[in-house]
Amino acid sequence: MSGKLQGNIVVTGSNRGIGLELVRQLAQQVKEEETHLYACCREPEGSQAQALRELAAQHPGKISIIRLDISDEESISAAVQAVSEHIGDEGLNLLINNAAINKPASPAPLSATEKKHMMDVYETNVVGPFLLAKMFLPLLQRAAERDSPENNKGDTMSCRRSAIINISTLISSIEKCPESFSVAQMYPYRTSKAALNMLTRCQAEDFRAHNILVTAVHPGWVQTEMGGDQAPLTTQDSVRGMLSVMVSFSNKDCGRLLDWQGGAIPW
Amino acid sequence: MSGKLQGNIVVTGSNRGIGLELVRQLAQQVKEEETHLYACCREPEGSQAQALRELAAQHPGKISIIRLDISDEESISAAVQAVSEHIGDEGLNLLINNAAINKPASPAPLSATEKKHMMDVYETNVVGPFLLAKMFLPLLQRAAERDSPENNKGDTMSCRRSAIINISTLISSIEKCPESFSVAQMYPYRTSKAALNMLTRCQAEDFRAHNILVTAVHPGWVQTEMGGDQAPLTTQDSVRGMLSVMVSFSNKDCGRLLDWQGGAIPW
Ligand SMILES: NC(=O)c1ccc[n+]([C@@H]2O[C@H](COP(=O)([O-])OP(=O)(O)OC[C@H]3O[C@@H](n4cnc5c(N)ncnc54)[C@H](OP(=O)(O)O)[C@@H]3O)[C@@H](O)[C@H]2O)c1
Ligand SMILES: NC(=O)c1ccc[n+]([C@@H]2O[C@H](COP(=O)([O-])OP(=O)(O)OC[C@H]3O[C@@H](n4cnc5c(N)ncnc54)[C@H](OP(=O)(O)O)[C@@H]3O)[C@@H](O)[C@H]2O)c1
Repeated sequence: MSGKLQGNIVVTGSNRGIGLELVRQLAQQVKEEETHLYACCREPEGSQAQALRELAAQHPGKISIIRLDISDEESISAAVQAVSEHIGDEGLNLLINNAAINKPASPAPLSATEKKHMMDVYETNVVGPFLLAKMFLPLLQRAAERDSPENNKGDTMSCRRSAIINISTLISSIEKCPESFSVAQMYPYRTSKAALNMLTRCQAEDFRAHNILVTAVHPGWVQTEMGGDQAPLTTQDSVRGMLSVMVSFSNKDCGRLLDWQGGAIPW
Repeated sequence: MSGKLQGNIVVTGSNRGIGLELVRQLAQQVKEEETHLYACCREPEGSQAQALRELAAQHPGKISIIRLDISDEESISAAVQAVSEHIGDEGLNLLINNAAINKPASPAPLSATEKKHMMDVYETNVVGPFLLAKMFLPLLQRAAERDSPENNKGDTMSCRRSAIINISTLISSIEKCPESFSVAQMYPYRTSKAALNMLTRCQAEDFRAHNILVTAVHPGWVQTEMGGDQAPLTTQDSVRGMLSVMVSFSNKDCGRLLDWQGGAIPW
């Protein structure tokens, strides 16, 4: 399918890495009158958000920077409130749960992994996306209700109508764990992302009746702080791939785990 | 394969439900001079542990009741210490991570599910088993080193030599989520048990070099406080099935999810 994403779009963790590039490419692709981007980050005024502030300045009226720490329930409430006030009656078309952490710094063996790492990584990588989806649900429903189905193949779901994309990873695959475990153990991260896949699958079932699509996407191994220097993919190529795959999503993709080129990854 | 489990065996959550029945059947099956059972529960002196105390009294010298709250790291340390002192040089042959919780009382919809439910269920169902395995690893290694392979098919792993069994559930299957989601949403429980499966798979890779088998087992839908009245299986039948399946486990079963009858469940 051709076409572009549009509508009201929320991206978490958008001050650097893949999140920043998502906002950059979305801002370039979309028409101003059709789209508004809510770029979330922990410290909108901090030095870590400088690149995002510059990007917003290059696209006046298109990008709102929203304060959001997804490990903090009150911060999530406040961010949802701020976006709601801005959106008004239109509803939210697309929520991209991108922010995530990996602790301890990888590749950490079991002996260096503590309870706090397990709990913190789950809180950010799973409970954050869980709460954000729960609180944004009324706005996602509103967008789904306002829009009519996109095509006449019976497809009622798309990332243009109403969708949640949970950014997962190849490393979330329980099936494929033996292929990479010895080079990247990452107990807290792996368990959290397997749980995020289950969350995706539950939400897909739960929200299907509302015509809200929920899909998990693996961005590839990407040159960011998390991905490291050895990663083969630039953020540009990863995000270009993900956006073109996302725009093609329809009912058949709901509740699946797909990579940045559209390939299926086993659970 | 015939034969019985033996050696030093730890069971968590053994004061009621499936855990209590595991200790009961193990105590009946095994010979006193070959086996010692460490039956863990939160309140060894409390009224909730009355049935376990009576069982221990029926098998003098075979069952030690150990205080353990798997949501509390200090309690885990103390329990591992207590078991270590008792075991001495022999090592631990089998750790059965059975204790788990489901919050809020099911079948709870998303709207009734809070951050605290997500965090508490993960802490008990995933981080508890994670820490217990980490702290018991030296004792599991010792048991694996003392014992020689069981058979001459090249199998080096078994539940008699050195193993961790993580009690999972059919509901942990991401693949099968759509089959049961509408009748039992259980976001916190489902995400935690999918993560437990990933933990199992990571540990299987990690501990294979030490000849420690790690496998996840689904007990069936069982008549316990958690399973409810409508469950078709008695604890007796579930545990009889699981024990006979566990005694047959060898290298090929390491890192898998199998049910109480030995059938494979997809991730
Ligand atoms: N890079 C890869 O190779 C790769 C591979 C597979 C999957 N992924 C996934 O892709 C997504 C983006 O990763 P990345 O490589 O861009 O990572 P990154 O460079 O480390 O960036 C992570 C982003 O998440 C934000 N974040 C972390 N914790 C947060 C919190 N509590 N509240 C709000 N924001 C928070 C960070 O903000 P701060 O600046 O405030 O820390 C940052 O913007 C993640 O879901 C990751 O798991 C990445
Ligand atoms: N019943 C089923 O149909 C079914 C189906 C699939 C899987 N399972 C799994 O089978 C296992 C046993 O379940 P069950 O049906 O026997 O459940 P249950 O009747 O609710 O018993 C749970 C046991 O876990 C203990 N426990 C809970 N939290 C604990 C903690 N923090 N520290 C120590 N012990 C704790 C409880 O002790 P207290 O008395 O102190 O609370 C109790 O002994 C669980 O892993 C469950 O997920 C059960």
